[in-house]
Amino acid sequence: MRIAFIGLGIMGLPMAGNLVRAGHDVVGYNRGAARRASLAEAGGTAAGSIAEAVRGAEVIVTMLPDSPDVTSVVLGEDGVLASAGGGALLIDMSTIAPATARTVAERATEAGLRPLDAPVSGGERGAIDGTLSIMVGGERADVEAARPLLEVLGATVVHVGPAGSGQTVKAANQLIVAGTIELVAEALTFLDAHGVESGPAVEVLAGGLAGSAVLDRKAAGMLAREFAPGFRIDLHHKDLGIVVDSARAAGVVIPLGAVVAQLMAAARAQGDGDLDHSALLLGVQRLSGR
Amino acid sequence: MRIAFIGLGIMGLPMAGNLVRAGHDVVGYNRGAARRASLAEAGGTAAGSIAEAVRGAEVIVTMLPDSPDVTSVVLGEDGVLASAGGGALLIDMSTIAPATARTVAERATEAGLRPLDAPVSGGERGAIDGTLSIMVGGERADVEAARPLLEVLGATVVHVGPAGSGQTVKAANQLIVAGTIELVAEALTFLDAHGVESGPAVEVLAGGLAGSAVLDRKAAGMLAREFAPGFRIDLHHKDLGIVVDSARAAGVVIPLGAVVAQLMAAARAQGDGDLDHSALLLGVQRLSGR
Amino acid sequence: MRIAFIGLGIMGLPMAGNLVRAGHDVVGYNRGAARRASLAEAGGTAAGSIAEAVRGAEVIVTMLPDSPDVTSVVLGEDGVLASAGGGALLIDMSTIAPATARTVAERATEAGLRPLDAPVSGGERGAIDGTLSIMVGGERADVEAARPLLEVLGATVVHVGPAGSGQTVKAANQLIVAGTIELVAEALTFLDAHGVESGPAVEVLAGGLAGSAVLDRKAAGMLAREFAPGFRIDLHHKDLGIVVDSARAAGVVIPLGAVVAQLMAAARAQGDGDLDHSALLLGVQRLSGR
Amino acid sequence: MRIAFIGLGIMGLPMAGNLVRAGHDVVGYNRGAARRASLAEAGGTAAGSIAEAVRGAEVIVTMLPDSPDVTSVVLGEDGVLASAGGGALLIDMSTIAPATARTVAERATEAGLRPLDAPVSGGERGAIDGTLSIMVGGERADVEAARPLLEVLGATVVHVGPAGSGQTVKAANQLIVAGTIELVAEALTFLDAHGVESGPAVEVLAGGLAGSAVLDRKAAGMLAREFAPGFRIDLHHKDLGIVVDSARAAGVVIPLGAVVAQLMAAARAQGDGDLDHSALLLGVQRLSGR
Repeated sequence: MRIAFIGLGIMGLPMAGNLVRAGHDVVGYNRGAARRASLAEAGGTAAGSIAEAVRGAEVIVTMLPDSPDVTSVVLGEDGVLASAGGGALLIDMSTIAPATARTVAERATEAGLRPLDAPVSGGERGAIDGTLSIMVGGERADVEAARPLLEVLGATVVHVGPAGSGQTVKAANQLIVAGTIELVAEALTFLDAHGVESGPAVEVLAGGLAGSAVLDRKAAGMLAREFAPGFRIDLHHKDLGIVVDSARAAGVVIPLGAVVAQLMAAARAQGDGDLDHSALLLGVQRLSGR
Repeated sequence: MRIAFIGLGIMGLPMAGNLVRAGHDVVGYNRGAARRASLAEAGGTAAGSIAEAVRGAEVIVTMLPDSPDVTSVVLGEDGVLASAGGGALLIDMSTIAPATARTVAERATEAGLRPLDAPVSGGERGAIDGTLSIMVGGERADVEAARPLLEVLGATVVHVGPAGSGQTVKAANQLIVAGTIELVAEALTFLDAHGVESGPAVEVLAGGLAGSAVLDRKAAGMLAREFAPGFRIDLHHKDLGIVVDSARAAGVVIPLGAVVAQLMAAARAQGDGDLDHSALLLGVQRLSGR
Repeated sequence: MRIAFIGLGIMGLPMAGNLVRAGHDVVGYNRGAARRASLAEAGGTAAGSIAEAVRGAEVIVTMLPDSPDVTSVVLGEDGVLASAGGGALLIDMSTIAPATARTVAERATEAGLRPLDAPVSGGERGAIDGTLSIMVGGERADVEAARPLLEVLGATVVHVGPAGSGQTVKAANQLIVAGTIELVAEALTFLDAHGVESGPAVEVLAGGLAGSAVLDRKAAGMLAREFAPGFRIDLHHKDLGIVVDSARAAGVVIPLGAVVAQLMAAARAQGDGDLDHSALLLGVQRLSGR
Repeated sequence: MRIAFIGLGIMGLPMAGNLVRAGHDVVGYNRGAARRASLAEAGGTAAGSIAEAVRGAEVIVTMLPDSPDVTSVVLGEDGVLASAGGGALLIDMSTIAPATARTVAERATEAGLRPLDAPVSGGERGAIDGTLSIMVGGERADVEAARPLLEVLGATVVHVGPAGSGQTVKAANQLIVAGTIELVAEALTFLDAHGVESGPAVEVLAGGLAGSAVLDRKAAGMLAREFAPGFRIDLHHKDLGIVVDSARAAGVVIPLGAVVAQLMAAARAQGDGDLDHSALLLGVQRLSGR
């Protein structure tokens, strides 16, 4: 299949590579030439502009940092809608505001495209291994049309509702993940302050109702104070902005979500923006003078 | 083995029954005669007083509602220490304040007993099935002496440190569990308000870094608005009091813990004390006018 | 002086009236004809469009509900900038986002106008009586040029810094006011639950370091459960959205601000949007089951 | 009048001195001999024990650090109740838990004394100048009997309800004061981060609904980063423990109170315990990386 892939960053490049390896004709675009060259090395084709990438593509994938990027790349003057052919699938895999996703979907539908919002979780590792979890919003028929391709990129592909729903579920995901990391950070600091050995404590916590993927995958790194990302504080901070705003817009009250958004902002303000989000532990320790 | 079992409540009675079935000679005491009769029916022996239960026991187990109960039953005038024989294991399986557990352990040690604090998680189901998780504080030799017996009661038995450590880990457990339920409650309300179907959303959330035992075991009940306990709001409220106080005493700052303690208190104040702790969902919905 | 006044709402109309009474030639515009007629009755002139109001005005005042309104009225196709004469003072007295105020100021300066952001506090009463507090951002010379006119509208007129600063101070004001109301609400509920008579308690609280304008002006109404606005929950909710967003944008962590924003959102979601902001008391009482 | 004064600390000593200067026969006791000597220099009499101070006194005043001190001094083996004569007024001016105050009052009443709880606000300055605010719980007749004496110590003396009510109002006071300081700290940091000059901003904030005694008396010191106490973080931390516990016991939900209690705990844990409570500003600045 002829696929345009726009956004060849830390996530986008390995995803595009997986599509190449699955036998697709992938034409990629990224602002920086170096990333385009990397795609070419991986067997794809580098395009000089969005228009060039998009022209003739049956599927257009976007994987961009934030809402304004998607708005500009898709709706902008020389953007996707200006050049894409009728009937193409437009799959935005960025994590952006649900409201923006709905706007993009409306405009894309008017332009004759078939839009999906399909944000992912699983991080760089999942992007490389093709084991992402993908939560998809859009028309059922379009999701089914995109499924073979999405299953190249992810291990779990779930249709969660109409346009924007994928982003809504991703926002809920980011709320839970940030909150769970903070809870584990508070618990580990609590144990430490009481002189309890963390190793056996984590083992028994993980085995009961307190168990979570965060405890399983992040606690060891937290205990070892290793915070190489993974998923960066800066990005999770951006995502919690989406969570707080979307909750406000929908009239949903999220007390823990609002507090953890402040703590993530504090981590960033205190210089931990480039660390893994599990570095929320450092914030709890600073607050506790440890 | 000759075992005294004090506290034959919703947890204690099935635990004592499991010890009987494992071949032990269990003499039980509870203030109410009905519970004592139930133990006798299950093959144990009903005692008319703490002293009677404790006399001649090699192991004394207490399973009581709160710190003052343990203080009174163990340290009180006609309490355990007044009648227990030298060298007996004293295993308190109640969930109480770590500071109280340390005091009880000191006094018991002075009286020649071998104290352990061994709170559990897993609820009534785990008590009946003998699959509790048990977090044990005390001397290593005493833990090993108690292990065969604890393994009758639980599937996971972990020694987490010196006296009081079991209660500290239990407090950390209750902090994480309450917070995770609240995060899931906020996320489900968020999804609902945005018109996203909860079923597929929960499926994809549970499969990624947002996954947790709470999502696995509680989300379905929350979606169905079924809140039969399980573990009651009233009890979790009591436990969060221990968490907040112990954190304060140790100089640990727990912003999410403090907020969820308020929300649990609100659930109780609003009449949900007898519901399962997953009924924190009702609080989020009330706050959101849904 | 020839003054254009755009936005003749609950605040704008009496403010425009005060300018008329001070001898100015006020030409007003509002979308609804009824409000325009009210201005005419008060001695002003009703204009049929923004352009008509603005043409030939030495001073243009805008008093509008929210950021998008100001953006559209000032920067829109048939907006203020399209018709205003060079050198006119453009005084935006709406409460909007500081970032929007800075954008408007830049565009207005490019168009040859002299922009000020001058949000007010003091409510409908202050608007009618001409006793508003006005916090002004912009060039010092422009502030001085506008001062005689602003002193018709308010009792306190303070220049707080460059463009956008007025809105920043207003946001800080709304943060403190919302938080103080909530603190008083928590304290009153606490006193009530302990059976303490509120009257003497409020007297002694107001006399010490706990004293505040909120205690002085709002506590009596709160004790009497009279919540006629005043300043509505809905509007304060809008303002706290500005506070949270502006804090986030500036990297400032505001834990109490974030929590009170959630509580204000809850008041709105539970149907109290049209009540005075002191109705935060009802939220504390609901949470406490009272 | 013959007055026993127990607790000659930073507050108690000047208060006892004021009673001496008003013509009373003050016999004082403090654990350290130096403080007793200071009282003797001021014209009072130093006693060698609580019993010696209390014997023959018509009024007994206690001014002690915390609940356990009052319990021990009043109810302990050689405490006040063991030696006080029937009918004496027992005025506890310490800040302690309302529940402890009620217990002390019951026991004192049984012993034939007339107990009042009469905590103060106004700090060392108010103690020296005799301008404290005094909130009094107890029987009306006893309050009136004590009033002439209390008016030597304070400028405002208000009877707020039955035994324990004074402490309840003091707790409410400490909740509001801590919260207001934190709100001002968040607002000042917000203004600073946006480049707004704080001086004029504070002026306009203080003049409106955001105005408070905290803004009037503390903002200048906060802007100058001068945090000499005043009232220490450590003591306010102790008081917020009382607030949180009493709210919990009464089923009152105090979201802002709970969060500011965490922030005060953080200030203490980070080494600011000996600074004035307005040093909450330092915490906001640390969180914001400033």
